[in-house]
Amino acid sequence: MLSNERVAWFNGEFMPESQVRIPFRDSSWVFGDGCFDMTRTFGHRLFKVKEHVARLYRSLRYLRIDPGIAPERMCQLTEELFERNRHLLGDDDDLWVGQRISRGVRMVPGDNLEHHGPNVVLECMPLPLEQRAKMFKHGIRVVVPSQRRVPPDSLTPRAKTHNYLNLVLADQEVRSLDPEAWALLLDVNGNLCEGLGSNIFVVKDGEILTPREQFVLPGVSRQTVIDLAHEEGLPLREADIDLYDAYNAEEAFITSTSICLCPVTRLNGADIGPEGQVWGPITRRLADAYARLVDHDFVGQYLRRYVDGMEARPF
Amino acid sequence: MLSNERVAWFNGEFMPESQVRIPFRDSSWVFGDGCFDMTRTFGHRLFKVKEHVARLYRSLRYLRIDPGIAPERMCQLTEELFERNRHLLGDDDDLWVGQRISRGVRMVPGDNLEHHGPNVVLECMPLPLEQRAKMFKHGIRVVVPSQRRVPPDSLTPRAKTHNYLNLVLADQEVRSLDPEAWALLLDVNGNLCEGLGSNIFVVKDGEILTPREQFVLPGVSRQTVIDLAHEEGLPLREADIDLYDAYNAEEAFITSTSICLCPVTRLNGADIGPEGQVWGPITRRLADAYARLVDHDFVGQYLRRYVDGMEARPF
Amino acid sequence: MLSNERVAWFNGEFMPESQVRIPFRDSSWVFGDGCFDMTRTFGHRLFKVKEHVARLYRSLRYLRIDPGIAPERMCQLTEELFERNRHLLGDDDDLWVGQRISRGVRMVPGDNLEHHGPNVVLECMPLPLEQRAKMFKHGIRVVVPSQRRVPPDSLTPRAKTHNYLNLVLADQEVRSLDPEAWALLLDVNGNLCEGLGSNIFVVKDGEILTPREQFVLPGVSRQTVIDLAHEEGLPLREADIDLYDAYNAEEAFITSTSICLCPVTRLNGADIGPEGQVWGPITRRLADAYARLVDHDFVGQYLRRYVDGMEARPF
Amino acid sequence: MLSNERVAWFNGEFMPESQVRIPFRDSSWVFGDGCFDMTRTFGHRLFKVKEHVARLYRSLRYLRIDPGIAPERMCQLTEELFERNRHLLGDDDDLWVGQRISRGVRMVPGDNLEHHGPNVVLECMPLPLEQRAKMFKHGIRVVVPSQRRVPPDSLTPRAKTHNYLNLVLADQEVRSLDPEAWALLLDVNGNLCEGLGSNIFVVKDGEILTPREQFVLPGVSRQTVIDLAHEEGLPLREADIDLYDAYNAEEAFITSTSICLCPVTRLNGADIGPEGQVWGPITRRLADAYARLVDHDFVGQYLRRYVDGMEARPF
Amino acid sequence: MLSNERVAWFNGEFMPESQVRIPFRDSSWVFGDGCFDMTRTFGHRLFKVKEHVARLYRSLRYLRIDPGIAPERMCQLTEELFERNRHLLGDDDDLWVGQRISRGVRMVPGDNLEHHGPNVVLECMPLPLEQRAKMFKHGIRVVVPSQRRVPPDSLTPRAKTHNYLNLVLADQEVRSLDPEAWALLLDVNGNLCEGLGSNIFVVKDGEILTPREQFVLPGVSRQTVIDLAHEEGLPLREADIDLYDAYNAEEAFITSTSICLCPVTRLNGADIGPEGQVWGPITRRLADAYARLVDHDFVGQYLRRYVDGMEARPF
Amino acid sequence: MLSNERVAWFNGEFMPESQVRIPFRDSSWVFGDGCFDMTRTFGHRLFKVKEHVARLYRSLRYLRIDPGIAPERMCQLTEELFERNRHLLGDDDDLWVGQRISRGVRMVPGDNLEHHGPNVVLECMPLPLEQRAKMFKHGIRVVVPSQRRVPPDSLTPRAKTHNYLNLVLADQEVRSLDPEAWALLLDVNGNLCEGLGSNIFVVKDGEILTPREQFVLPGVSRQTVIDLAHEEGLPLREADIDLYDAYNAEEAFITSTSICLCPVTRLNGADIGPEGQVWGPITRRLADAYARLVDHDFVGQYLRRYVDGMEARPF
Repeated sequence: MLSNERVAWFNGEFMPESQVRIPFRDSSWVFGDGCFDMTRTFGHRLFKVKEHVARLYRSLRYLRIDPGIAPERMCQLTEELFERNRHLLGDDDDLWVGQRISRGVRMVPGDNLEHHGPNVVLECMPLPLEQRAKMFKHGIRVVVPSQRRVPPDSLTPRAKTHNYLNLVLADQEVRSLDPEAWALLLDVNGNLCEGLGSNIFVVKDGEILTPREQFVLPGVSRQTVIDLAHEEGLPLREADIDLYDAYNAEEAFITSTSICLCPVTRLNGADIGPEGQVWGPITRRLADAYARLVDHDFVGQYLRRYVDGMEARPF
Repeated sequence: MLSNERVAWFNGEFMPESQVRIPFRDSSWVFGDGCFDMTRTFGHRLFKVKEHVARLYRSLRYLRIDPGIAPERMCQLTEELFERNRHLLGDDDDLWVGQRISRGVRMVPGDNLEHHGPNVVLECMPLPLEQRAKMFKHGIRVVVPSQRRVPPDSLTPRAKTHNYLNLVLADQEVRSLDPEAWALLLDVNGNLCEGLGSNIFVVKDGEILTPREQFVLPGVSRQTVIDLAHEEGLPLREADIDLYDAYNAEEAFITSTSICLCPVTRLNGADIGPEGQVWGPITRRLADAYARLVDHDFVGQYLRRYVDGMEARPF
Repeated sequence: MLSNERVAWFNGEFMPESQVRIPFRDSSWVFGDGCFDMTRTFGHRLFKVKEHVARLYRSLRYLRIDPGIAPERMCQLTEELFERNRHLLGDDDDLWVGQRISRGVRMVPGDNLEHHGPNVVLECMPLPLEQRAKMFKHGIRVVVPSQRRVPPDSLTPRAKTHNYLNLVLADQEVRSLDPEAWALLLDVNGNLCEGLGSNIFVVKDGEILTPREQFVLPGVSRQTVIDLAHEEGLPLREADIDLYDAYNAEEAFITSTSICLCPVTRLNGADIGPEGQVWGPITRRLADAYARLVDHDFVGQYLRRYVDGMEARPF
Repeated sequence: MLSNERVAWFNGEFMPESQVRIPFRDSSWVFGDGCFDMTRTFGHRLFKVKEHVARLYRSLRYLRIDPGIAPERMCQLTEELFERNRHLLGDDDDLWVGQRISRGVRMVPGDNLEHHGPNVVLECMPLPLEQRAKMFKHGIRVVVPSQRRVPPDSLTPRAKTHNYLNLVLADQEVRSLDPEAWALLLDVNGNLCEGLGSNIFVVKDGEILTPREQFVLPGVSRQTVIDLAHEEGLPLREADIDLYDAYNAEEAFITSTSICLCPVTRLNGADIGPEGQVWGPITRRLADAYARLVDHDFVGQYLRRYVDGMEARPF
Repeated sequence: MLSNERVAWFNGEFMPESQVRIPFRDSSWVFGDGCFDMTRTFGHRLFKVKEHVARLYRSLRYLRIDPGIAPERMCQLTEELFERNRHLLGDDDDLWVGQRISRGVRMVPGDNLEHHGPNVVLECMPLPLEQRAKMFKHGIRVVVPSQRRVPPDSLTPRAKTHNYLNLVLADQEVRSLDPEAWALLLDVNGNLCEGLGSNIFVVKDGEILTPREQFVLPGVSRQTVIDLAHEEGLPLREADIDLYDAYNAEEAFITSTSICLCPVTRLNGADIGPEGQVWGPITRRLADAYARLVDHDFVGQYLRRYVDGMEARPF
Repeated sequence: MLSNERVAWFNGEFMPESQVRIPFRDSSWVFGDGCFDMTRTFGHRLFKVKEHVARLYRSLRYLRIDPGIAPERMCQLTEELFERNRHLLGDDDDLWVGQRISRGVRMVPGDNLEHHGPNVVLECMPLPLEQRAKMFKHGIRVVVPSQRRVPPDSLTPRAKTHNYLNLVLADQEVRSLDPEAWALLLDVNGNLCEGLGSNIFVVKDGEILTPREQFVLPGVSRQTVIDLAHEEGLPLREADIDLYDAYNAEEAFITSTSICLCPVTRLNGADIGPEGQVWGPITRRLADAYARLVDHDFVGQYLRRYVDGMEARPF
């Protein structure tokens, strides 16, 4: 009989999520010394697992952590995890599915630890479709916080590590000013950079621009949009983008694993993008192409949750 | 009957350490979104608990985390924790005793979590006296790694957070070049900054210098040395210190909670400090004053573990 | 008979304000190529005219503008201007009184301009006591905008020039997020800097701190507070202050010519300063000393305008 | 009967220039809080009005100023202004024709202002053909001043604002060392940037280089040269250019609205460009193409004013 | 009869090396105020003399030194020098052949110096084939030192000057940690830059990357690799490369005049490049193409010197 | 019989200067890999030899060069050198006397070098009293060049190394604009820094300011002025000084070994310092105190060379 508790994979075994408990001396709990990756399902089908796992192993290499599992096996386990949880999904629901790896417990003098190597967790989580529905209806409000994104020569933003306080605090700050807004950090040079798990794109003079990879997490959704633009014959370029570009953009949108892409309509309190509209033509076209690629109307999936007067609750 | 397993305090209860397990969706495991503080005992007596807890609450305020416990209560619990573990200590051993607080578990849509507020752990841990004995005999070798310390306008180094990857990776790098060396990062301006849990001091032209607080964790041991220097009538100043200062220093030493203070004898492969000696006169005098203050010969405690030919194993 | 229109002084003559009109090719209109200074009256008495005029001449020297008027004469004219407008003041009202100087009109080939040297205006303006009353009741909300203050090696913030767009746009941005908030810019190093016409102070560990002069306008009110702290025996220091300092400050306040000093109660959406209070003890003590110095209850003057439910309208 | 005074357009009306007078509390006079744009005529024909007006509206959007006039109307008014002044032009003369917009007068408490919205001026001005004639004969001497160009994250150089003190003071400094020299500022990274109203180009290894748009005003003449190079099959690239490039350049030239393009022959006191010649082959070819495009021998127009021994008087 | 002492060319004459002595007040001895260039022979044939001499004259122009010799003559003298020393070369040996030019002796008041203009030396030197043999067998270990490369706006790295202390000290530091390792400095932005006389390349996602020319000496070997990649149809791009790129690179190699190109196998103590192999496929392919271009098996020439257990002695 | 050629000391022997010849492969000739120090005589008496030699050994330690001579011996040799050259001095003349040390010749494979360790030269040189006379009569004109001083984290300016190209090129640039002007570089933060062998001081609001030691050579003359100010009861502080400070300074002067201290009267083409006077009261007072300290009227010594209409020829 199938349980109605989600299962996770933890150091070699599938088990109910509530049983996945981390020793408190784990390096990721005490130092954020770990990394992760995360894909989503579209209509109950996993998306680009291989690409996400490849990025996970680049993060691991940067951190000098050997997870003791080959990438191919990591992909298989990810898929198996999803299969084991699939029966819990509502028809119009979908999941995040991801991997998390810490360096493991630091040895304590005199201790006889059963396990001190990497702690590996594979998990899945329902997408917050309802909480984000309003953004697809009215667009995202974005605010630049006071913090600059950690510079690459301190800690690369390209590794998806468990050191995300810089981004978390930016979000805290922005939401205490506007509870529905998203934080968009500038990089060390004052260019548009990224938010917590999100990449930014602007359309300027008919060209699609996104920050250079050196300063941001190279999102898989970001790459998907880059590829789709190429296929659609839309010019797209990585560039140093600043607020002058953004205020004068014809359109702007955000990508992330869960939202795919969603329009931005306000930046630092100023309206940006197409006058009086949420979806500009390029954003719309890329969203349609994205939906075709994943064979799933992700925009509709969000909008079906929307009810007048509801608030966006950034998850 | 007293157990021979150490106990910790976890969200309201004392329990054996092995039972302290963190849900894997805790913000500190996934984002390093938490902070900590840590003191040590000297001859089985706790040191400056109040100062450490005060710093903990400054970190919490910066992170906008409310732990739900008043500072005074945090001090009491820390002391009680130590009392409950005291019987496990050998005569010449001592402990780290500290607090760790995460923002808590991020809610998952549809989940019914029993506890999602801050996760609070109080813990103690034997000091790695043996592993560090060689440093007190021969001095510490210090190497500047390739990373610059995360700049204050990205994430302040003054809060003792769980986002320490920048420091952890620096240590990894340096130890892969010299397994006994400690990493000393430069700050964003190229000045001497700090290592993982350690502060640096140099003696130059008879004056003791240490990096300005803005760029480092304001260590309690660092402050103790500052106060002792004042009492001893030794001139001491916070300053921008660079490698020219360090190479020409008469002496250099490191402070941390566990080692108190310990001489540095080599920097980037060059001998520094007093020629042919490990302990310079100022370092010695401050160590003696420190020992008097804590009424405990901490240097002797380390040196008693030293055996010829043993290696330093940075913990 | 006395007119009920305010008069100004323009290039040698007193005249009604409505007659002071600047040629549109004036360098200050087309380049912001000019500078100004501004004091206020307290109970119809001018405050530190000489100090303001001295700063004006430092600005002029930096701009390489010769106003053609000696500083002493500038002081006399300022006082005369006030006398000529005094009869228009209500009993509980006060004025800004200041000087503005542009480099003058750029010559146009072939033109025969009557006047192309510096354009000099002396003016006065009623203080916006009502608009700012709420701030004295409830404290000021401060938000860090996306712009960094123009760095000193591009254009010094110490000269009070007519190039204030950097500050104006910061204010625009912050007020579009929170109409009652004030912008506080960070400097090029990420330290607290200044807002449009305002300086910031924080009280930390019993010590009063304010940003180093190199990065801010050295406000006359700022200097007055520095002098008063000295007289009151309160420790005060110019320092590099960052957001960690501010979030952990015991108190914070802003100074400007018109508000003198007023408490800050919220920074980037977080409460700062004394818990549950608007006025901390140090801020209160300095305000009292300020009032004694100027022999005028400026706080009461503002608070008398306050009506429940009114909004702060940053002027 | 036609007047022999130039007319301007001011807030809705055409009037003699001498009647266009700005209230002294206008935001652009007191803060430089406004922006402008400017084209020129070639043989009494306006050049790229639409492109200039489009840039003006990008500046306005960045400043969050709504001028209350549609761009199309702004173009018409610009053309009408020129027509109304055309009869004053000598056969071999030409005009600057431009628009200037301020945010308007800041309200004064209690005042009843007739007009406090944006102040809009359209104006024209004879080109200083004689003053610049020597530059076309002997080339321009360029000097790097002590100031760095204001960085984009303080205030974008791409908006043509009324905050030009950084550029004005650079010019003052350079001309006090060499009255005929032009200032060329470096950007915040030490790369060649721009001067007051001018863009720089160098020819290096057969390729034409100009600073990246992010750091400079995207001059319409600059864009014209970019387009012409493309049409002529000459390789051209936006790049980070530094002084090493410039000293080793085969050619260098400056573009601006009034001079179109003019060779640079000396940089920081060193000869640069083609040995013993003013005009290098690429500069000459682009100038010829420019003249064909505008159907006007602008170089000849300048050179006809040249008289031996005359000085360049930078306008 | 041929001498068995090498000859050099000094200020107009060929003479035995031991007779080339520089006055101690020469600007290059006291200020490093000079520059140089250096090619090598392959199988007793000179390589790209013209390209090296062209770069030398770009350095001279940047330094504002006129050597008093035309570039063509400099090439002829270089070739003649080699011919005069050829008889000293062993069959499997080769030479560095280069030019060095100082600004000359600073005049001393009252002195009557015979020669105070530029001092020009042309020299050749046997390649250290044996000392570098191990690197071709086992790959190069590279370490990032504490120094950042001198930024271009202080002194361009593109001129091959006699001011190499920044690079020399980096080498000293790295070799005191690992006597066989090479220093690779980061630039002012924290990107990979260059070492003493060496350029770095990484292969990432099938693309060859090398730091942008602005921050490095544009090595002739570097350019040769760029050209060969182009001919081989291998994608190659100048880019901002950081340590994340390097740790995740498929391959990495270094180029210099003497070693041409040689694989890097370790960076900051971490293995990089193809697992368990010294030569990756792209590096091998480029080395083969290089060998074909110069018609000389330079790798074999080095490897023939290799003896088990020998150490690399960076020259 | 005494020779009328000056003698120098070279690697162990005194010899005529013309015989001191450096092998062209010496590290200081090819890399500027060496350092020096230099004092002067006052009325035929050496000044602070010990302080200069102490600084020399700090430079050597930073460069990791062991000269093989103890500091005390270096002082003796310096004095002996002076004695051996004293008879060549005119009554009103004086000398520079200094030491120069290179790392030595890099070994060439297969070579049998007689000497490859450090090359050490002690030398003396007549002061250019005549060339600098005009500066004492009319003050020094100072110009900020385009280069920024090399930052301390690339190569410390505190070591007096043979890598002075950054300063030499600054001088070249400034003198090609104004043959009598001195270059004053800004540091990496845009603050006043230093020139080739000279330190800057400004007097502001009655306080003497000089750049912080971290960014400049800590000149012995600079330290002498600091000490004299202290003795005279004049407030003096190391500080970040920028151009705003300098333009508004009451006085400014330069110190160097040869000139001791000399007033600055013009900065970037603007008059600075006391109106209409060369020597301000503080500068004069310090010069007098300096003269008393060295028991020598150094100002008079320079002024006696001055002839109307002569030019300053910066040496």
